[in-house]
Order: sequence, then C-alpha cells, then structure tokens
Amino acid sequence: MIVVFTGGTGGTKLVQGLQQVVAPEELTVIVNTGDDIEWWGLHVSPDVDSVLYGLGGLLSKDRGWGVDGDSFRCLERMKQLDQPGWFSLGDLDLATHLTRTALLRAGKTLSEATAELAGKFGIRVHVLPMSDNRVSTILDTAKGTLTFQEYFVRERHQVEVQAVRFEGAEGATPAPGVIEAIRQAEAIAFAPSNPVTSIGPILAVPGIREALRSTPALIVAVSPIVGGAAVSGPAGQLMQMNGWPSTIHGVAQAYDDFLDILVIDAADADAISTQPSASSREDSSNKAARFLATNTMMHTLGDKRNLAAFLLDACELRQNAGA
Amino acid sequence: MIVVFTGGTGGTKLVQGLQQVVAPEELTVIVNTGDDIEWWGLHVSPDVDSVLYGLGGLLSKDRGWGVDGDSFRCLERMKQLDQPGWFSLGDLDLATHLTRTALLRAGKTLSEATAELAGKFGIRVHVLPMSDNRVSTILDTAKGTLTFQEYFVRERHQVEVQAVRFEGAEGATPAPGVIEAIRQAEAIAFAPSNPVTSIGPILAVPGIREALRSTPALIVAVSPIVGGAAVSGPAGQLMQMNGWPSTIHGVAQAYDDFLDILVIDAADADAISTQPSASSREDSSNKAARFLATNTMMHTLGDKRNLAAFLLDACELRQNAGA
Repeated sequence: MIVVFTGGTGGTKLVQGLQQVVAPEELTVIVNTGDDIEWWGLHVSPDVDSVLYGLGGLLSKDRGWGVDGDSFRCLERMKQLDQPGWFSLGDLDLATHLTRTALLRAGKTLSEATAELAGKFGIRVHVLPMSDNRVSTILDTAKGTLTFQEYFVRERHQVEVQAVRFEGAEGATPAPGVIEAIRQAEAIAFAPSNPVTSIGPILAVPGIREALRSTPALIVAVSPIVGGAAVSGPAGQLMQMNGWPSTIHGVAQAYDDFLDILVIDAADADAISTQPSASSREDSSNKAARFLATNTMMHTLGDKRNLAAFLLDACELRQNAGA
Repeated sequence: MIVVFTGGTGGTKLVQGLQQVVAPEELTVIVNTGDDIEWWGLHVSPDVDSVLYGLGGLLSKDRGWGVDGDSFRCLERMKQLDQPGWFSLGDLDLATHLTRTALLRAGKTLSEATAELAGKFGIRVHVLPMSDNRVSTILDTAKGTLTFQEYFVRERHQVEVQAVRFEGAEGATPAPGVIEAIRQAEAIAFAPSNPVTSIGPILAVPGIREALRSTPALIVAVSPIVGGAAVSGPAGQLMQMNGWPSTIHGVAQAYDDFLDILVIDAADADAISTQPSASSREDSSNKAARFLATNTMMHTLGDKRNLAAFLLDACELRQNAGA
C-alpha cells in the first residue's frame, strides 16, 4: 500500500502520476480539507475535488482545478443577482457540491460522502479526507483574518500573512482509515504541496504526525520549492513566515521529525551540499533526510508518471538496502 | 390597485398581460406556494419563479417555465451522479434557487426573499407569496401520497387522485400585505389557474377567503376550463374529484362565495344558458356570478394584453354601474 499526502494542484499531479504506476486498490490518498469552504450554502472541498477530478479524468488541464469543459453560467447569473462571485464554481462542478452537501445533510460523514462521490466517478483509489471534523485554515493578514480561500482566491495571495492557524484541529480526529493507512503503508509520499497550508492542516490533526513518526514505512516527500522559490502559489512566503527558509532545506525542516527522503528537482542538486548537518539541529529526535534529485516539474502525464516511478524506485532502494 | 391571484403557467400569462395595461406599482400578485419543493437541498418556488421570470422578461416561451435560453448541464451531471433528476432546474435557474435558499438560511422570510429577488430582476410589481409559512399541497393517489411536484412533474399527472389537502395550511398566516391588498384593491382577478391545486392552496390559508368575501373590490376570474376541459394540466380531473363539474359552472362554483364575474372563452358562450340559477343553490350566501365571454386563449403577448384589458373593462362596467 502506497499512501500519499496531498493538497492543492501540484499534489493532484503527483497523485495522477502514482495512478499510472500503482494499482488503484494499493493507493490511498489523504487529502487536506483545511481549505473547505461553505459557498452559496454548499460544502465545497476544493482539494478533495481536485483529487477526485484528477483521478476520474475530469480535471481541467487548462485551469488545474474544476471540471474540464465546464461552463460558468450559474456563476455569471449569481453575480447578476449580487451574490458573491469571487470563488468560481462551474455548472458541472456544482453537481459535485450539491451531491456532497445533500449527502452531508442526510447524515453522512465527509469521508462517506467522498467515498460515494469517488465511486460515482469510477475511482477505485482510496481517497480519504484528513478528518470528518471541520478544520479551517485561518490566516491573520494585513487585511485582517481570512479563510484560506479568501486569502488564496479572493486576495490572490497578494497580502502579507502574519500567522496561520487551523481552527478546530485540536478537537478533530483523523478520518477512519487514515491512521491505519499510515501504519500499514509500504511507503508514504508527500506530494509537492505547500507544507504550511496544504500539508500543515493534515499534520495538525492530532494523531497523524505521531503515526508518521512511528510508522515502519519509508517516508518520501517531493519538494514544492525549486530554485529557491515555490513552483506555484505562496509556499515560499508562508514557509518563511513559519520560520522555515524557502529552500529544499526548509522543506526538509518542515517534515524533519519523520522524513526519510526528500526528492528535489535536478535544478537544486547543487544546493544539497549546503544542507545543515543533522548534528547541528537542536532536537536530536530529528531524522536527517536523504536528498535525491530528479526532474520534479510535472507538465505532461509522462512527467507525472516518471516522478511517481522515481518515488517508488527510491523506496525500493531503501527496501533493498534493508534486505 | 389591481390584485391577481395566480399559480401555474396560465396564471403567469395573465400577469404578463396585466403588466402591459397596469402601472407596476398598481399591480399586486399573490402567488401559490403550495407546490414549493425542496430540491437538491434548495428551496424552489416554481409558481413564484414563473411570475418573476414572466414579469422580468426571462421566462422561457418554449417551455412556459424556467429561464429562456437556459442550459441543463448541472442537471445532466446530477443524473450521472445518481441524484434525482425528474425535476428540471436549469443552470441559470439554479442561481435563483441558490439565492433564495441563502436568503432564507440567513433568516429572511419567503416574502422578503421574493421581494429581494424581484428587485434584482428589475421588477416593480408587488409579488407576494401567499404565506411565509410552509404549506404543502399533498395528493392521495393510486400511487400513494404524493407532493404536488411528484404528482405533476414526476408522474405527469397521469395518476388518479382521490383527495387533495394542504399540509400546514391551518397554522399558516397570509404573508404580510396579502390581506391589506385584498381589502384595498379596486379589483381582484383570479388568473385562469387550476382552482384546486393552484388557487386552492391560497384560499386554504386562514383569513384569505374571509377577506375576499368582505372586500368591496369587484372580483373577476378567468375560467381555466374551455370547451368543458382544462386548457392545460389536470384542472378538469381535479375539479371533478372535488365535486365541481369541469365546466365554466364548476369554476363559478369553486369561487361562488366571493366571485362577481367569470370571464369565459367565447367558445363557451352557449354554455352560459345552462348555468344553474342562484336560487337552486343550497347556500343562500353564494353570489351569482355574471358570465362574460371573450377570447381567453393567450398565445401571443397581444392575446395576454387584450384579456387583461377586457378584465379592466369588466371592472369599469361594475364601477360605472355603481356610479
């Protein structure tokens, strides 16, 4: 069993790559729900939907989110009716949110609703929200307190962030299957997602980080930072705000209590030598992750498949080493 | 002030005609909400929407319901997701229901939400739902107990009806402005709507029928029955089930405690002579409505305007007679 932690568009690309090289029943995806949003009265789970659309072959290649070939007629009419319009839901996309909301109102949990939607999209990969409880990524910014979507979509992340917190995380529990998947995994991969706002909410759910520290599985992450900057989005700025440099070393630091291997882009191979030595760290419980370089830019399906295969090979290296 | 009672597609046509000959501020439309439906978690008010779309110039001429030029992409996707699909909501239409539902969830009443939607559609006619309370038209049928939309849309009214009742009517109160409009009206018109399931729910709200009996306004109805059968829909069958013949006399009977004039189609002019005399009725409090014949078929906007003008003339007749 391969387990992937993901959130955001880069994460979905890696999930699509893994779908090419791992049998669907052998793949479990644990998805950030910290940026879920109640929109027009509907429960929208943007990261879960990206994974579902990505795995179901529905994801818009142009936009990287939403449904391929979607239209936005309802959205345009909503704007004419003076309803909020900065978060774009397509007409086909709407059906997903209407269905999820109906399932939740009927008493299903978010993971049950996700499984039901996955089934309807013909997906056999296990897609698990991080928690069935509501956890909200909240950002204190120069423009006041914002939800993640307000920050990311409405403000186009062009606003200074002072702090990030995960409201509701303390009282949340991992969704059914999450801890079991971590414990039983042969390998665990962290997608090249924002460590602060895509992976951060997942790790904030009590029990998940602990399970990662104690799992026998090899844990490998793909750096979302290439050439000292985020491939897309505000990961660099948010990492610095969190006290981590926006470098491959900062990514390693974000996961330094459980990470075995950090896969970095070939462009950063030279930066490995500047890695702080494990002994320089204050907390001796930290692992010293090994760095492996390859092409991590996923423009084509071939890129995605190659990166996924590289991750699997990296895990076999370790397995071979242990044999 | 002219007040119109309406429900269904025929009613909307007359409202459109009245819009042509009455200043918008002088027109109040009281609309059936007995066939409101919770659909995909949204509050849909089909008769209110037909009036809003009709007055706002948005109504589909082809279908007689919904928004002109609408698409049904969300609906098609909902069907693919195994969600109920027998009630058609278009992509543009959805925006109305999302907006109304959001307003209701925010604590607005149905009449406040209706007024807000009307304003956004640029409508200055007063559109009032019959009540802010939930009243549901329920039919006992050969296929079991059905809501109105299940009977009318899902079963295409091809099922025998044993009884009709209006759940919640006893405890309902007329929406703000309804009783005042009836009391202050110069004339009150009943659209050629189904007396049982379009007008019936309105009259079942306590206080409305009483106000109609005591108003000084002239009350005129347009017969939905032409040539012994309903122009459209199941009015004939439902009237017979209710003990009223499906004739112009049956229509007069449905409203016989308050009706002054029944406007019938010219095709039924010969049937006037077969009218039972007022003295033959058991209840001496019944009025004997006068019958006036004209063309009541509303195919074109000209037809609608002509019928509306005929109704106004009919009222002036009475006003002249009283002067």
